Formats: sequence, C-alpha cells, structure tokens
Amino acid sequence: MTISAFDHPWLSGLFGDPVMAEVFSAQKQMAHMLAFEASWSRACGKFGLFDATKAADAAHAIETAKIDFADIAKGMSKDGVPVPRLIKQLKATAPAEALHKGATSQDVVDTALAMTLREASDLIAGRMLDVVNQLKTLEVRFGGNPLMGRTRMQAATQITVRDRILTWHLPLAGHLERLETLRPKIEKVQIGGAAGDRKALGDKADYVVGEVAKSLDLAPTGKAWHAMREGVADYASFLSLVTGSLGKMGQDIVLMSQQGIEEITLSGGGGSSAMPHKQNPVAAELLVTLARFNATQVSAMHHAMVHEQERSGVAWSLEWMILPQMAMATARALAVALYLTQNVTRIGADGGST
Amino acid sequence: MTISAFDHPWLSGLFGDPVMAEVFSAQKQMAHMLAFEASWSRACGKFGLFDATKAADAAHAIETAKIDFADIAKGMSKDGVPVPRLIKQLKATAPAEALHKGATSQDVVDTALAMTLREASDLIAGRMLDVVNQLKTLEVRFGGNPLMGRTRMQAATQITVRDRILTWHLPLAGHLERLETLRPKIEKVQIGGAAGDRKALGDKADYVVGEVAKSLDLAPTGKAWHAMREGVADYASFLSLVTGSLGKMGQDIVLMSQQGIEEITLSGGGGSSAMPHKQNPVAAELLVTLARFNATQVSAMHHAMVHEQERSGVAWSLEWMILPQMAMATARALAVALYLTQNVTRIGADGGST
Amino acid sequence: MTISAFDHPWLSGLFGDPVMAEVFSAQKQMAHMLAFEASWSRACGKFGLFDATKAADAAHAIETAKIDFADIAKGMSKDGVPVPRLIKQLKATAPAEALHKGATSQDVVDTALAMTLREASDLIAGRMLDVVNQLKTLEVRFGGNPLMGRTRMQAATQITVRDRILTWHLPLAGHLERLETLRPKIEKVQIGGAAGDRKALGDKADYVVGEVAKSLDLAPTGKAWHAMREGVADYASFLSLVTGSLGKMGQDIVLMSQQGIEEITLSGGGGSSAMPHKQNPVAAELLVTLARFNATQVSAMHHAMVHEQERSGVAWSLEWMILPQMAMATARALAVALYLTQNVTRIGADGGST
Amino acid sequence: MTISAFDHPWLSGLFGDPVMAEVFSAQKQMAHMLAFEASWSRACGKFGLFDATKAADAAHAIETAKIDFADIAKGMSKDGVPVPRLIKQLKATAPAEALHKGATSQDVVDTALAMTLREASDLIAGRMLDVVNQLKTLEVRFGGNPLMGRTRMQAATQITVRDRILTWHLPLAGHLERLETLRPKIEKVQIGGAAGDRKALGDKADYVVGEVAKSLDLAPTGKAWHAMREGVADYASFLSLVTGSLGKMGQDIVLMSQQGIEEITLSGGGGSSAMPHKQNPVAAELLVTLARFNATQVSAMHHAMVHEQERSGVAWSLEWMILPQMAMATARALAVALYLTQNVTRIGADGGST
Repeated sequence: MTISAFDHPWLSGLFGDPVMAEVFSAQKQMAHMLAFEASWSRACGKFGLFDATKAADAAHAIETAKIDFADIAKGMSKDGVPVPRLIKQLKATAPAEALHKGATSQDVVDTALAMTLREASDLIAGRMLDVVNQLKTLEVRFGGNPLMGRTRMQAATQITVRDRILTWHLPLAGHLERLETLRPKIEKVQIGGAAGDRKALGDKADYVVGEVAKSLDLAPTGKAWHAMREGVADYASFLSLVTGSLGKMGQDIVLMSQQGIEEITLSGGGGSSAMPHKQNPVAAELLVTLARFNATQVSAMHHAMVHEQERSGVAWSLEWMILPQMAMATARALAVALYLTQNVTRIGADGGST
Repeated sequence: MTISAFDHPWLSGLFGDPVMAEVFSAQKQMAHMLAFEASWSRACGKFGLFDATKAADAAHAIETAKIDFADIAKGMSKDGVPVPRLIKQLKATAPAEALHKGATSQDVVDTALAMTLREASDLIAGRMLDVVNQLKTLEVRFGGNPLMGRTRMQAATQITVRDRILTWHLPLAGHLERLETLRPKIEKVQIGGAAGDRKALGDKADYVVGEVAKSLDLAPTGKAWHAMREGVADYASFLSLVTGSLGKMGQDIVLMSQQGIEEITLSGGGGSSAMPHKQNPVAAELLVTLARFNATQVSAMHHAMVHEQERSGVAWSLEWMILPQMAMATARALAVALYLTQNVTRIGADGGST
Repeated sequence: MTISAFDHPWLSGLFGDPVMAEVFSAQKQMAHMLAFEASWSRACGKFGLFDATKAADAAHAIETAKIDFADIAKGMSKDGVPVPRLIKQLKATAPAEALHKGATSQDVVDTALAMTLREASDLIAGRMLDVVNQLKTLEVRFGGNPLMGRTRMQAATQITVRDRILTWHLPLAGHLERLETLRPKIEKVQIGGAAGDRKALGDKADYVVGEVAKSLDLAPTGKAWHAMREGVADYASFLSLVTGSLGKMGQDIVLMSQQGIEEITLSGGGGSSAMPHKQNPVAAELLVTLARFNATQVSAMHHAMVHEQERSGVAWSLEWMILPQMAMATARALAVALYLTQNVTRIGADGGST
Repeated sequence: MTISAFDHPWLSGLFGDPVMAEVFSAQKQMAHMLAFEASWSRACGKFGLFDATKAADAAHAIETAKIDFADIAKGMSKDGVPVPRLIKQLKATAPAEALHKGATSQDVVDTALAMTLREASDLIAGRMLDVVNQLKTLEVRFGGNPLMGRTRMQAATQITVRDRILTWHLPLAGHLERLETLRPKIEKVQIGGAAGDRKALGDKADYVVGEVAKSLDLAPTGKAWHAMREGVADYASFLSLVTGSLGKMGQDIVLMSQQGIEEITLSGGGGSSAMPHKQNPVAAELLVTLARFNATQVSAMHHAMVHEQERSGVAWSLEWMILPQMAMATARALAVALYLTQNVTRIGADGGST
C-alpha cells in the first residue's frame, strides 16, 4: 500500500531518507497543527478574544489530545482538509468556545508546513555543509592530479581534479547562502481566518499574530500568505537547484567511472544479478535521477502559484502532493552525495603532477 | 514515514485509492517477480537449459519462499535493484543452478511491471466505463435542460446540458478504445539477459521467451524492451490524457457551482472549519489537481526515454518514482469522477425546456 | 526580433527546419483559414443557409483576398484570436451575409490546425521511414561487429552492433504505426459555432459539416472538438515519443564517441573555436537536447486539456505557444538523425566477427 | 517561417513584446559578443598576452566588423556554436594572433548572455514597479469596496477589495527585492578558456578577467561558471515566480468578470467573431497562459543543470531554446498586467462602504 518510492518496503532502500521522512511524518505534522491550535487558544485568551480560563483549558486539552488519524482521513475525503474533523475531535475534551475560533484550515495547515520546512531546512543546510566539506577534503587529497578536461563529451585539454571538484562544491556553497535569505520568507505564521482578512480578530489581530508567531518561533506577517504562494514555490525551486547541482556531480562521476575512461575509483558500488564482477555506480546515477525528479516536480509548484481568490483547493492540494516529495529527494540526494564522496578512493591519475 | 499523499495517514483519505494501491503493493510486485522466476526456472528446465528436476524444485521453492523485504531494501541501497538480494534469499531453498541464470534484474522487474500494468489497465478500463455510463445517465436525466454556453469565461449563447456533458464522456470513450490498442504494447515479457541479447539462452531463446510469456499470460517479444521505453512512456501519456479529460469536467463543475452561477447542485460537498454553511466542491477540485499532477509527471516519463546503452540506472529508476503515482492519480480521479457524478442532483435550469 | 531558436538568424542553423517551418508558416496557416472560410461559404450556399450567388461571390473573394497580417496582429492583441479582424478584412470584398456566419473563431483556427498537422504528419512519417531505412542499412553494414554491451554505464557482456541498432529503429517503426492510428483523430474539421452546438446551422448541420470536411479532405465530426483537446494532447505526446526514441540514439552515439571508448566513427563533426583538433558529436548531442525539449513541452499540452466550458482562452492559447515548437523539434530531430546516421563510417570493432 | 508565438506575424500581437524582443535580438546578441571579443583583445594586449598594437587593431576591427549572420548559421549547424565561424569572419580584418586566443565559445556566448540578462532585468524591474504602483492606485481607488471573499470557489465571508489587491502586489514587491539579490549572480563574466581553467592566461588570468569584467560592467569571477548553471536556472525560476504571481491576478480577474459574479469592470476587452456583444477578458486570460507557459519551461532549465564535465552541448543548447522565451513571456505578462490594471474601471461594489 506504499506507492511512493520514498516509502516502499524495498525501493525506500534506494530512495528513502528516514531522517527527512521523520520531519514530514504525519506524527510531526499533527504535532505542529496541535501546537498551532494550542498557541491560538492561549493567544486569544491572552488578548481577551477567548475566556482566559477556558483558553488555558483548551490549550492543555489540545496538547494532551490523542488524535485518531483514521477518522481524520475520513473527514479529508469529504472536506479536502484535515482540520474540520480535527477540531471535532478536539472538542471532545477542549471547550469549543476557546478553540480554533477566528482561524481556518489554512492557518493550521500552512503554519504547520512552515514548522516542517524549518526542520527540513536545518537538515538540508547541515547536509550541504557536510558535502561541501567532504568535497574540500577530496580537493585537498586529489586536487593536484591531472584530469582530461572534456567538453561536449570530447577530450579537450588537461585540467586538474581541482578544476572539476570546484564545479561540484562552489554551487552548493552558494545554495547554502541562498537558503539563509530564503528561510525568513518561509518560516512565518499563516493567520488569515475564514477569508484571509483576520476580521474575526478585530483590533487584536496584530497582537494575536505576534503572540502565535512568537510562541511557535516563526515570523509574524502583516498579511496572511494563504493566496500568495511564491514563498513555497521559491523554496521548491531552491530544492531543485540543490539536486540539480548534485546531479551534475553525479553525471560527472558516472562518466568518469566508465571502463576506458577510469578517472575515478569508488568503493561500495552496486552489484548485478547477472554479472557479479560489475561495480555499478549506483549512488552517482541516483543523483542524476533525483535531479531529474525534482526538475520535473518544480514545474507543478510553479503551476500551483495560479491560486485563485482567497483559497484554491486545486492549487493548494497540488502542493501537498509535490513539496514533501521534493524535500525527500533533496535530503536523499545530499545523503547519497556524502556517501558517494566518502567512497572516492581516487580521482584522476594518482601518479599525476602534484 | 509516509511522504506520499497517496499513502499518508490522512491525506490518503483525499488522494488514496485502496484498490489501485493493492495493484501496486509491494506484496503484489513481489508475487509477480516470483512468478517470473518460477516460470523462468520451469521454462529453462523444459528446454534443457536447467536440469529438469532441479528446475521443478526451484520453481516450487520460489513459489513458496517467504521473502524478507527489509533485507531486499538493504540490497536496494547498494545495488540499485532488488533482484541480486532476492536471488540470494531464494538460493537458501532453491537450487542455485536452476535459478535466474540467463536472466537479469531488468527481466524480473520489467516483466513484473507488465503484470502490474495489466491489472491497472483492467481497473482503469472498468472505472472509465462506469464513469461513461454514469455520465450517460446524467445526460438522459438532465440533457435537455438549457445551460448558458460560456466561452473565454463569458456567457456566449444558450446550449443544452447535453452539449456540455458530451464533452465530458466522449473523450473517455475514446480513451477506452485507445487503451485497447495500447495494452498489447505493454503487456509483454521483458527477457534480455545480462546485456539484452538473450545470449545465454542460445538457440533456445525463442522457446524460453514463448514459454515464459505463455505461463504469465503476456505477449512474447522478438527483442527485449529493456532499452526501448516508448511503451511505458506512452502508457504514462495515456494516464495523463484520462486525468486531463476528467480535469476538464472537474473545472467545469467547479465553475458551475459558484454562487451567482449555480448551474449544478451537488450533494456531499466538503465542510469548512471556519464556515459550516459552505459546501465546497472538493471532489471537482480534486479532479483538476490530479490532472495537473499527471500533466507534470508525464514529463518525467518522457525524459526517461533517454535511456542510454543496454540499461540506464538513471532513467529506469526515474520511472519507478513516477509511473506508480500516475496510475494512482488516474485511478483516484476515476473513482472521484464516479462519486461526483453520482452526487449530481441537478444540472442546468430544472424548469428548462425538456 | 526572433526569440525562438527555431527561427533565430544563426541558432536556426542548428535548430531550424525550413521544411517544417514552411508547414507552420503564417502564409500556410492563413491559406488554411481562408480555405475554411471559402468552403464554409460554399457549403452554406449549397444547403440554403446563404444565398447561393452571394456564397459563390464570397468564396471567390475569400480565395483571392490579400490579407494584411499587421492588421490582424493588432486585432489579436485585443481579441485574443485572429478571426474577428480577418473577417473584417474579408468583408471589404466579400458579401458579409455569406461570410463566416454560423461559424466562430475556433472553427477557423482549429480546422486550419488540422490541415497543418496533416502536412506535418506527412513530413514526419516520411522522415521516420528514411531514418528507419538508413538504420537498417547500418545494421546490414555493421550489425555483425562486436560491441561491448553496457548497463548502468559499465561494461557488461559483449553484444553485437545489431543489438544496439535494433533499439534505435524498432521504436521508430512502432511510432510510424502509431501515427497511422492517430492521424484520423486529428485530421477532422472543427465546426461548432458560437458555443459549440452548431445551433445556427439548424437541421443542415450534418450536411454543412460533411461538405466542409469533404472539400478540405478532413473527416467530419459528430460533435465539435473545441473543448475536447485529447486529440492534440495525444499528438503532442506522440511527437515527444519520437524525439525521445531519437534522444536515446543520440545519447548512445555521444557515449560511443568518447575518447577511450571509440565505438563509433562519425564524419562531419563540429569544430571548436579553441581546439581545432576536436570533432564534437554535435548532431548526436542535439538529438538529446530536442528530446528533453519535447519532454518538457509535452507537459504544457497535457495541462491545456483542462479546458473549461465551451472555450478556454487560457488553455487554447497555451497550445499555440507549444505545439508548433514541438512539431519543429520533431522534424529537426528526424533530419538530424538522418544526417547523423548517414555520417557513420564505423560502429563497433571493424575487424570483429562478421 | 516564424514558429514562435512571440515572433509570429499575428500571434505576436497577443504574445509579442517588442521591447524585450529587442533585448534578445540577434543584433544585440552579436553586439555583446563583439564587445566581449574587443574587450578580450584589449585586455590581453594590456597584460602582454597579445602584442599591444595588434590587440588595438583587432579591437578596432572587431568593433567595426560587418557580420554575415547567414554564414554563422551555416557554422552553427556544424559546430553547434556560433563562435568558430564568427572568429573566421573576424580574421578577415582583425589580426589572428590578437583575437580570441585563450578564450572559447562559451566565454563569448555566456558573457553575452550576462549582458542580455542585465538589460532584461532592467526592463523587468521597471515594469514590476509600474505594475505595483498601478495596483496601489487601484487599492487607493477601490480598496474600501466590499468584495465577497471566496475560498475553494465558494462564497466565504465579505472582505474588501484591498484584501484581494494586496495578494496581487505584495508578491511583486517581494520579487523586486529578490531580483536585486539575484542580479549579481548572473551579471558576471564567463571566462574559462578551452576547458574552463584559464590555463592559457597563465598568471595573468585574474588581471584579464578583471579587465574584461570592468570594461563590460560585469562582475569578475574566481572560477568560470561554464559548468555551474545554477545562476541561470535560478534566474529562470525567478521569471516563473513573476509570471506565477501575475497568473494568480489574471485568474482572479477572469473569475471576477463572469456574468453572475461581475465584481470587476474592464474596458478594452476582446471581441468575438460570432458574438459582437461579448467582452472577453483576453488580457487576464493571457496572464494565466503565460504563467502556465513559464511554469512548464522552468522545468527544462532545471534539467539543464545536469551539465556534464566542462561543457555539455546537450544542456547548454537546451538553455538557448528556453530562457529567451521565458524572458519574453515575463516581459509580456508585465506589460499585459499594466494594461489590464489600467483598464479597470471598477472593482467590488461601488456603492460599498468607503
């Protein structure tokens, strides 16, 4: 019952990334949604929109609630969002009048997404740094070796291994910087209420938004981003840039490992059921696959920017199908890149000029 | 740990399709792979490539083997394919000399895919017919009602509901015919051996191919399709054509259900956490989402046609990430379309000319 | 002022195809639109919808009209379609009451497209046959030569050149067959009138449709296809399948031509401004580029299937941006494939077993 | 002979943008390439790589050369790049020993691209500002009008026109900021020489790079970006984000202009050949079309990041087919957005609360 290559019982051995899967797990997502609801009750209690005691009760009830996912799945099929059924469950223990009022589904789901992407970015940034560092290690070790430069797949003039490796890690270093400027555009609360105008909060809107943002360690926003999806689309583009740069490295390594070329030696290559002697550059190939996967998916995230009116069920749902997969592909590509570069035992001619 | 919207604990309530998920389940895929291996042993036994007794023993052992998926996942991460580790497991009970010899990973995985797609096509064809029939029922019931024809989103001239409904079911009827001509190009064995030339089978190649094909109820092939992926790419295109046609219907229904337009009445719409009075056309929106999902994914399947040499790890792996999701999206779209059209209680002006 | 690589003063040297460009030229498109209008006037005259004499006058005036393209461009920017301004121009010499009445913009433009695609298919079919034949010639000449089979970019076991070449021409032969079954779904008149229901034609609708279809040598249709775009989307998929198969061949040849591999010898390779000794496999690379181009574009044609109501300006316009380019890329890829395969002077080891 | 909707004799009336077309015109591109070559000769003359007098002669000859584009097109078809033939033409008047030496095709073409994109960015930034300002004007004029907020295509709660307009211009303001940080990553010289390592420049490399950069008003680079394409891919993503945001506005306006909804009044709508009474929201539709066009194209630019070795003919050529079109679509979308917003004569209920 596991269609996705990321989760499939054995395909996940190749494509899966348990750490990123945990970041996007339903349990974590639910925890983020509940954190939003609890924060919402408390903030509305603090600023007089909810009765203070009931708000405290609600927040406590939310934080200790046991959520029935199967029931939410049922609601999902009817409502297209998990929140109506979630609220219904919460009302079993939390006082209804101090719960969710003034918020809407998108506030819950998108704020939870911001929390998820914050963790995803932490993971991705850490791994990018690891890959950059490992590539710099390879540069120190093999950088001086001569390597045939190749343009249009033809031998051009001799370069050094350093020249090649620089094209692998310089872009990653750039992506790391880019992520720093991108994160603040993503890590912000979504608070709009029924139609995005925060009307139900009246003149307390800024206070509530500020309080919820603070308690969730996200940025506040002057205007809900429910119908402005350039942030998540840009994030998706970023993910695909990362896998694209890794795909270039993977393609290079695949080509370097060909018999007759033999410019690299890898340990840990893959076996064949028919030819035990083969050492397939599986990890390097996988980098190219993941690059092409994300290069395809990014298109859907850009299509999802055509997000009509105050909330597009069509476009928003499309994001749910795509973005988690792109984050997974990126995390996996980084893990594979690290593994691959750690298993390089030679690049270029060892006896080359040093 | 379930990244995919199709499998996610609650998103699957919206996107999931248990019947198609079963068709693509790991259990079924493994059953198909084992069916291939058993058939292979028997066919090679029959034509003298394997010792006949050992071949029978092997086939029996294969068919009764308990496969450890987690172990295969481990092999997957190293080999990029499940088969080397699967063969290793099978060798625990099946005689090695009458097992898999002369075949290769791609033979096993692609033949299993052909078996999976056969079941997928059965399901899709059945559901397409159901949707067509349901739409014809709506046509009978509401076809004579007047409806404002709209071009470029503007009122044009009055048409009938029949005119609109025809644009929903005629394409599906065409897709059903197309599927019939497409299936034979997909439902065929993949047998090539190590480098696709069936060399290990010597002059028995045609016999073995014919025998395996017959036992699996697939077509034989004169040449292995390992490096010719137009069949699966065309199948993916077909899936996206189906969801595209349903997406058109979904978009129409979404527009018809707007306040101020009100050309359709649906029962069973979705609720809102903030606005209990709303009846969201969730099912109709979902048809558009799934159309855009497949319209994006189909691109990757076309990229995967650039399948170098005798086997591209890059391109082949990309198919695994994409095709099952496209089949899921298609099956789900058909189920949603049936549900949606069954919940239409009015189209056009009821008091209209009949 | 020529943004497109197909038309650019020097990029067209690489990407352009004068023959297909002629098929899609504005002059030809206008000729098809005028042919539709003349046929329309005559058919409506024949069946009494127009005054017979005036219809004959109109047809003659249409066929001899000099059309001012710049004026139509001006109308295009306002109307989004060329037809209102075209009709205005025609009214200068043709009697208004026997001109276009009962038809609409989409009838003119889509029927003209059907005529264009008929010529495009003729061209593509002819070139596919040429490439298949040239590949068979190579097969005869070099098929017996040994070649190292390669899987996952690693040497596997020795195959023959024939094994490799078969993966190049068998798919093309299949595409040729497919085109035969696809053409009738494309080569049909579009006649719907204002909102697609042919209402203005009354009980003469079938006669007019049949007459126009006959005179333009297209198939009649029971229902206008204005809002059912699966035909053109399927055609686009077909184009991308063709370039995908050629892209596989291109990728193979690029890899075979590497120093250290040298499994192929090509004459006529490209030069480098920095390295006069290089012989770049430009044509083979271009096949891969064109495959990836079409694999990207095909996605837009599938998105364009979400064609709301009786006419979607959004989706229809998107087709105009994409489909001609895909046809161009396909024609160019076929021309390049023929050139490339004609310039092969060796594949595999010449001294190999024959 | 004009396949592209941007250049087509009448389609360009809808899709074309003469100003951006001029930025990407062959004449301008050639001027940029010649500017690079002249700067190259001078810089190499200045730092002793070329004879100083001959370098000055060469620069002058380059700057006054008349280039035969048709001849370059011929070279293009063979070499896959325009530069070898360009250099051959230049040698007719410029001393060969002080011309191009040490540079390569990619240096010329990519540096010229950087110059083109600088102009493109100027144009895009200016137009974005215009659209933002025009939207702010609409906000002042109509912002207080009540508007029915709509979520999932259903009436939700009443908002104001301001709430809707903010979702149109806030993203554009963000894109303007983003462009400022993106430009330095694009507007930099490409200098690598034959295999990207600047070897031919010896210890003068930094001087030459700095000098050429300074004279062309581009940034110098420590490492040639020939094989690191994240800059142009990111730029393409940016373009698609801009059109995506405009597409959201277009989709909103199309929906607001429906009969039965009538939340906006536009002047200058498009006519119909069959229904003169219609006022089609052609400009608003076009914004959606262009958004979906770019959302598709961006995928190809991400695929082109898989740029093997020191220069990929495949990936680089793919950029040439895609990026100019994306810039055109973006410029056109901005022009259309300005026109459209200038033609808004009402949003929301005029008699609404102010």
